Amino acid sequence: MEPLGPTPRTKLSRRPQRGSHDRALVYAILDEGLVCHVGVALGGQPYVLPMSYGRLGDQLYLHGAPGSRMLGALRSGAQACVTVSVVDGLVLGRTASKHSVNYRSVVLFGVAREVVSPGEKRDGLAAILEHFVPGRAAEVGGPTEADLNGTLVLAMAIAEASAKARTGPPADVEEEDGCWAGVIPLRIVTGAPEAHPRLAPSVPLDPSVVRRARS
Amino acid sequence: MEPLGPTPRTKLSRRPQRGSHDRALVYAILDEGLVCHVGVALGGQPYVLPMSYGRLGDQLYLHGAPGSRMLGALRSGAQACVTVSVVDGLVLGRTASKHSVNYRSVVLFGVAREVVSPGEKRDGLAAILEHFVPGRAAEVGGPTEADLNGTLVLAMAIAEASAKARTGPPADVEEEDGCWAGVIPLRIVTGAPEAHPRLAPSVPLDPSVVRRARS
Repeated sequence: MEPLGPTPRTKLSRRPQRGSHDRALVYAILDEGLVCHVGVALGGQPYVLPMSYGRLGDQLYLHGAPGSRMLGALRSGAQACVTVSVVDGLVLGRTASKHSVNYRSVVLFGVAREVVSPGEKRDGLAAILEHFVPGRAAEVGGPTEADLNGTLVLAMAIAEASAKARTGPPADVEEEDGCWAGVIPLRIVTGAPEAHPRLAPSVPLDPSVVRRARS
Repeated sequence: MEPLGPTPRTKLSRRPQRGSHDRALVYAILDEGLVCHVGVALGGQPYVLPMSYGRLGDQLYLHGAPGSRMLGALRSGAQACVTVSVVDGLVLGRTASKHSVNYRSVVLFGVAREVVSPGEKRDGLAAILEHFVPGRAAEVGGPTEADLNGTLVLAMAIAEASAKARTGPPADVEEEDGCWAGVIPLRIVTGAPEAHPRLAPSVPLDPSVVRRARS
């Protein structure tokens, strides 16, 4: 796959050895992340909001209410920065300054476009749903015509992006004696599903839904 | 505690019923979040990066290498937006459009100041460490004089912020028959600690460290 840069915006100035413009790696991190953090600047003031997202090929999809200020700015062509972070572990060194975090992140720059074709709108919304629970789109109804009309869907080309990651143990174990040092891995797990209180008891939950939610 | 607004930047335009300017709630979300996403605008271009942070009273601390572009912009007085998000669950509706995410988030606006007093610098760095593993600062050495000189520490007053949350089941169960609907809770858990490969086997891990990491 074609690499994603670097461009002036995605050149890695700090610790470039942790960075990459490899498209497959960027896609893998985007697919594993849970939510993205979208930044726009309005009159020089940055705004950063968490949002759901989905990916189809080289397109990242966002959605929301047409009245959203953030989506309105994106629709109007504001420069955007979309960042996805996955925290893999806490890195415990022997000294305060050697503590760190193992993580993988993607920073994507670009300008969004409004998705107007009903077909791509459906596909984009399905991608957002599938991002959370693969296979869910085929299990549920809709979106209806009214849903489509009431939802703003935006797409950003994944064309200018970088990935960054820290892996491995802390750096200072050979330097001195001291306390335990290593990595405490972190991961996101699902808890026991909470059926809607008014759901008929005869409506079963396919156990694979929960597995698919964090597979 | 004194509430945090609203101000023009933190007035909640979308779904205000999900929002709050309650200081205790903002603190609770900041304390539970893992990393923050810091946004600055450089020449109209937003940049959003994940960063570690810690809180002491009404001050939020960030740190990093003095050469970091993001920290340099913050040190120079750039308007910042710091967002912390906690994802609590996936909300599975019966139709595509009724899917959602249960979450809690804080959006904090302000301008950072460089922490220059060695005492506050130590306290700020300890707060960042304690944010990940409460009690860890007392277990490890440092920071040394060289660590302090080589680290840029910034503080932001928690004065202009809002919290937002979605809780509860999906909205559409009474509307139609269909598949299972409800919430799949998500949470972050610790995995088996990975000792540094060169750590002497005689150096034990206090099991409470792992518990404290996500308590």
